[in-house]
Amino acid sequence: MPAYATNMRFKFPIVALTLEIITIILFAVFAVYDDGKGHGHDSHSNDTHHEEPPMKLYPMFQDVHVMIFIGFGFLMTFLKRYGFSSVGVNLLLAAFGLQWGLLMQGIWHLDNGKIKVNIFKMINADFSTATVLISFGAVLGKTSPVQLLIMTILEITIFSINEHLVASTLKASDVGASMIIHAYGAYFGLAVARVLYRPGLRDGHDNEGSVYHSDLFAMIGTVFLWMFWPSFNSAIAETPETQLNAVINTYLSLAACVLSAYAISSLVEHKGKLDMVGQLFPLIFTVTLFQEFKTKTNERTLAGGVAVGTCADMNIEPFGAMVIGFVAGIISTLGFKYLTPILASNLGIQDTCGVHNLHGMPGILGGLAGIVAVALGKKEGGEAAMQAAALASSLGFALVGGAVTGLIMKLPFWGQPPDQNCFDDSIYWEVPEEEDENEESLAHADHSKNKAEA
Amino acid sequence: MPAYATNMRFKFPIVALTLEIITIILFAVFAVYDDGKGHGHDSHSNDTHHEEPPMKLYPMFQDVHVMIFIGFGFLMTFLKRYGFSSVGVNLLLAAFGLQWGLLMQGIWHLDNGKIKVNIFKMINADFSTATVLISFGAVLGKTSPVQLLIMTILEITIFSINEHLVASTLKASDVGASMIIHAYGAYFGLAVARVLYRPGLRDGHDNEGSVYHSDLFAMIGTVFLWMFWPSFNSAIAETPETQLNAVINTYLSLAACVLSAYAISSLVEHKGKLDMVGQLFPLIFTVTLFQEFKTKTNERTLAGGVAVGTCADMNIEPFGAMVIGFVAGIISTLGFKYLTPILASNLGIQDTCGVHNLHGMPGILGGLAGIVAVALGKKEGGEAAMQAAALASSLGFALVGGAVTGLIMKLPFWGQPPDQNCFDDSIYWEVPEEEDENEESLAHADHSKNKAEA
Amino acid sequence: MPAYATNMRFKFPIVALTLEIITIILFAVFAVYDDGKGHGHDSHSNDTHHEEPPMKLYPMFQDVHVMIFIGFGFLMTFLKRYGFSSVGVNLLLAAFGLQWGLLMQGIWHLDNGKIKVNIFKMINADFSTATVLISFGAVLGKTSPVQLLIMTILEITIFSINEHLVASTLKASDVGASMIIHAYGAYFGLAVARVLYRPGLRDGHDNEGSVYHSDLFAMIGTVFLWMFWPSFNSAIAETPETQLNAVINTYLSLAACVLSAYAISSLVEHKGKLDMVGQLFPLIFTVTLFQEFKTKTNERTLAGGVAVGTCADMNIEPFGAMVIGFVAGIISTLGFKYLTPILASNLGIQDTCGVHNLHGMPGILGGLAGIVAVALGKKEGGEAAMQAAALASSLGFALVGGAVTGLIMKLPFWGQPPDQNCFDDSIYWEVPEEEDENEESLAHADHSKNKAEA
Repeated sequence: MPAYATNMRFKFPIVALTLEIITIILFAVFAVYDDGKGHGHDSHSNDTHHEEPPMKLYPMFQDVHVMIFIGFGFLMTFLKRYGFSSVGVNLLLAAFGLQWGLLMQGIWHLDNGKIKVNIFKMINADFSTATVLISFGAVLGKTSPVQLLIMTILEITIFSINEHLVASTLKASDVGASMIIHAYGAYFGLAVARVLYRPGLRDGHDNEGSVYHSDLFAMIGTVFLWMFWPSFNSAIAETPETQLNAVINTYLSLAACVLSAYAISSLVEHKGKLDMVGQLFPLIFTVTLFQEFKTKTNERTLAGGVAVGTCADMNIEPFGAMVIGFVAGIISTLGFKYLTPILASNLGIQDTCGVHNLHGMPGILGGLAGIVAVALGKKEGGEAAMQAAALASSLGFALVGGAVTGLIMKLPFWGQPPDQNCFDDSIYWEVPEEEDENEESLAHADHSKNKAEA
Repeated sequence: MPAYATNMRFKFPIVALTLEIITIILFAVFAVYDDGKGHGHDSHSNDTHHEEPPMKLYPMFQDVHVMIFIGFGFLMTFLKRYGFSSVGVNLLLAAFGLQWGLLMQGIWHLDNGKIKVNIFKMINADFSTATVLISFGAVLGKTSPVQLLIMTILEITIFSINEHLVASTLKASDVGASMIIHAYGAYFGLAVARVLYRPGLRDGHDNEGSVYHSDLFAMIGTVFLWMFWPSFNSAIAETPETQLNAVINTYLSLAACVLSAYAISSLVEHKGKLDMVGQLFPLIFTVTLFQEFKTKTNERTLAGGVAVGTCADMNIEPFGAMVIGFVAGIISTLGFKYLTPILASNLGIQDTCGVHNLHGMPGILGGLAGIVAVALGKKEGGEAAMQAAALASSLGFALVGGAVTGLIMKLPFWGQPPDQNCFDDSIYWEVPEEEDENEESLAHADHSKNKAEA
Repeated sequence: MPAYATNMRFKFPIVALTLEIITIILFAVFAVYDDGKGHGHDSHSNDTHHEEPPMKLYPMFQDVHVMIFIGFGFLMTFLKRYGFSSVGVNLLLAAFGLQWGLLMQGIWHLDNGKIKVNIFKMINADFSTATVLISFGAVLGKTSPVQLLIMTILEITIFSINEHLVASTLKASDVGASMIIHAYGAYFGLAVARVLYRPGLRDGHDNEGSVYHSDLFAMIGTVFLWMFWPSFNSAIAETPETQLNAVINTYLSLAACVLSAYAISSLVEHKGKLDMVGQLFPLIFTVTLFQEFKTKTNERTLAGGVAVGTCADMNIEPFGAMVIGFVAGIISTLGFKYLTPILASNLGIQDTCGVHNLHGMPGILGGLAGIVAVALGKKEGGEAAMQAAALASSLGFALVGGAVTGLIMKLPFWGQPPDQNCFDDSIYWEVPEEEDENEESLAHADHSKNKAEA
């Protein structure tokens, strides 16, 4: 059956090698080391970092890197037979995505026709990669590596167009993270999932669950994401003081979220038990909502002209961060329990990791909060409209871009797995034979059979 | 049977949400961002850090954070069916503990009526949390999340009283770590374990062992603790030079400890084999003893007036650190092998992770060493007595506080597990079904049965 | 059978304790804390770091430390029944190796008769330890802890002689890493493996494979190695600018390598599938090749006199780094697939982890590139010859030293495992009983037997 020709011997190498060769050629044309000198016409606020020691951001960069490769990678190992794909394909997509993101983001800010690679840009490349890994969560288990590479290149390309539009044309860049990473990544992935809808999986799939140790592997990812999120939110803050506030806000919000997520999980689950998977995700959720605070904090800094007095209320203070984390834990746990199943059954969106709760809703909330914040805090008329336009732009690019990408991914020659092979590593990976203790038990069973027959 | 009503549907959410809401209210009243300005009347030595860049300690903080959440969390996954609780409850307790610790430690050092949150205080909050995680090791597998939350709030509250007494009233703060964290945490936990003694577990429990992969998960925690302990011991050192010495001492001591712990393990174990679990803990042990060196080193710095000549012998030099690590590895391995079983059988203290060896004994040793060091190195009479008072205070608060806490935890409505459900995640967690390969083997066995019957 | 007296009760403790006691005595004689003052006659370029804040390199050090203990340790857990040894013996060897390395490297650069321990020297000690861990990969599963401790002390001792010869006598130190760490470690290990050749394992061994979760544990090691390699390559760079370039080169090369390694794996594996183990190693490989770039980059800095114009081609630029990574991914995947089996069958070298592909070949390539680079870029005659001599020295010390070490290790009283117990933790470790779910299935099978018999 040609639609399910899942042998990747030629498809995958051709696509992967072609993409990498194109990327290397583009790097040869555009990329140079950042020498720390001159910045041409580009007055983008990012450049304020250039006077600093070139390695200053490196520890923050490595924290973010751990989140991308260990955090996202192991978070998705909760599926019982999809760990190789979760970690291995996560590595593949992120390794390609960061190269492509460096190019796509850099292309809008050329300095004498060159992209000057530095740690700041490497952090931003990791951020662009995060959009793809969010979308990956929605289609996890139901797509081939070839399909996902295609998604990566399209999603990051469209991302960088939207980012540029939001930041440079609409001048609404600061509120970015929640809209341009989280809402964009989530709705892009959901649009792809909608186009790739599989009626055959309406009633679930045997492999779409976890086993004891797969959940423990997933905890490795979750805990690293949880611990390092303050770095993610503060890495590119403008001043050390702003950076400290972003760290404190994220740290306290995450701590408060743990309590409420666990409490609500116990309240709604069977016999008051805690649910490992149902708690993994709320912990991540709160974090996404945090993009908004970072935003607000940065905004205050950037909006220099705005009197501190008139927008003091925008300073959320530590307890404000905790309230948001607390509420986020509640919303996300409930969403994971009640909303994800509804999305699947009513809208035909099979969202493997529940990215709608994790990134979609909080992303939109962050965007709305940004509109309100700007409307209240700024004098000049029209800017709130720009914020609204930025949210609409992000959602529009996500939904249209995701739908188109989904249609391209649906073409029958990309090796999409048939329903029965979903959520199963062995279709794309050499999977080792069963555990030897199991072989022993099989042998034992055989032995008992023989004995019984005798 | 009401004493074992382990359904947590209402108990846990009520306790968790109530604690978090109270905490948020207290943060609203007391906590603000540290703006780096003025420090009021508080002349605590910690404030010498305030003139530094606000993010300077951040990489150290993240190392300590990894130790608390990955290190302690995964260290305790060695039990075969208690991994969700080890990592998940560790996260719950630490997330609550760090918030409560920030409040309780901050309340003694208010600046214009406010707690100014900064990275230095966040590191100290992680330290206060460590006391709870030490005690958690003693009662691991035999307590409900509700009981443990109660333990957390009481233990950190009493901890901060003792810390204040030791540091500000007795002026013996420097020798702190070994007494106020390790000895305190250990004896608090042992007192709780004594009160919660279970005669039914006198002969062990089927689940109180490890399986192959659970030991490997535990190695993740062990190795991260081992690697980052130099950060733990040096994070809040006063000067870069002191910090370097603390790093070198800890690093060398840990390295020497590995050799002696492995050697002694091989000497005392069955057929000269190495014991994974029996070695995990000694590696951690040495580290606790190190609090003492940090102490001594800091002391030299702080005790400014003391002539370098008269206390040169207090500078332990690299080889001194190695000797201590070497001896610590021997003591702890022997203690784990011979002392833990005696404690259980003779004193009725069922110490799941052997925290007496790991934290109790070295904590007391550190305290005694501090008394001797002060007696030899300082001129002013009476201070050694203060050191002794500090040790007595720490042990007193631990034993009395732990016993009272244990009595409160023993109240029948906190969902304590019955003996047969100890060391088993499935009483509090939704545990996924058995591994599919196992299902296959069961199917196979069934098949053989059918065949045999036919 | 005396040749296989694998009980380590006395052998191991005696060897381990003796080595550690000797080490501590040597530290007592030679090691002091670095006070940052004066550096005597030693004009080694490393000393340019001394004017910097003592803790500046600490975050880089911890990244390298994570690579040594988590990276190498978990990388080798891919074997189904050798995880305890992989992580546990890795910890043992590295903990001893870093102490011995500090001594052996320091002995050549005494400052007033003392080794002044600082973070820079600790990073170098981790590097010297890496040579042992590379060799460990070649003999993994076929050697006892006692044999490996002997290998550690001999390999690091010989390493430091060769390093000193290459750096100080031949003045070819910069090209070091690829030759003196990677090529040296690989060929040393291969020589040991050749001497310890086991005809009985010619056709493989039941335990010489992976299981599902063992491959996931190995991914933890792989991903940490992959992420932090930029730290490894840049940690001891001379200037922040050089450091940035080394980071960017390594980061981009690693990213490009992922794509080509996955693509080639899919091309050559059964049914176009990806191979987890076959990809783990290429990812590491590329990284080793990188030592060469670091080299070149440093060289440019050091070779001050060389006009930038004449050697501009030595500046590889970002795309150059990607090309090397891309090619390295291809070579290594093919080597792992086709060359490792040939080595085993034709040359009698049983190279468990394929270190020849990973470190041997790229190390030699790096050495050759160094010769060419120096020949083209430097005016003074004779230096290319020195480079060639350095490569020859490294290979010579590795092969002769490895062979002699192998012969010592082959002595019958070190507890080497018999063929049938290779790749099996249970010969040296207390291994917990089988997983309980398995016991259940056994019980079930027994039950079916009983029923059938009835």
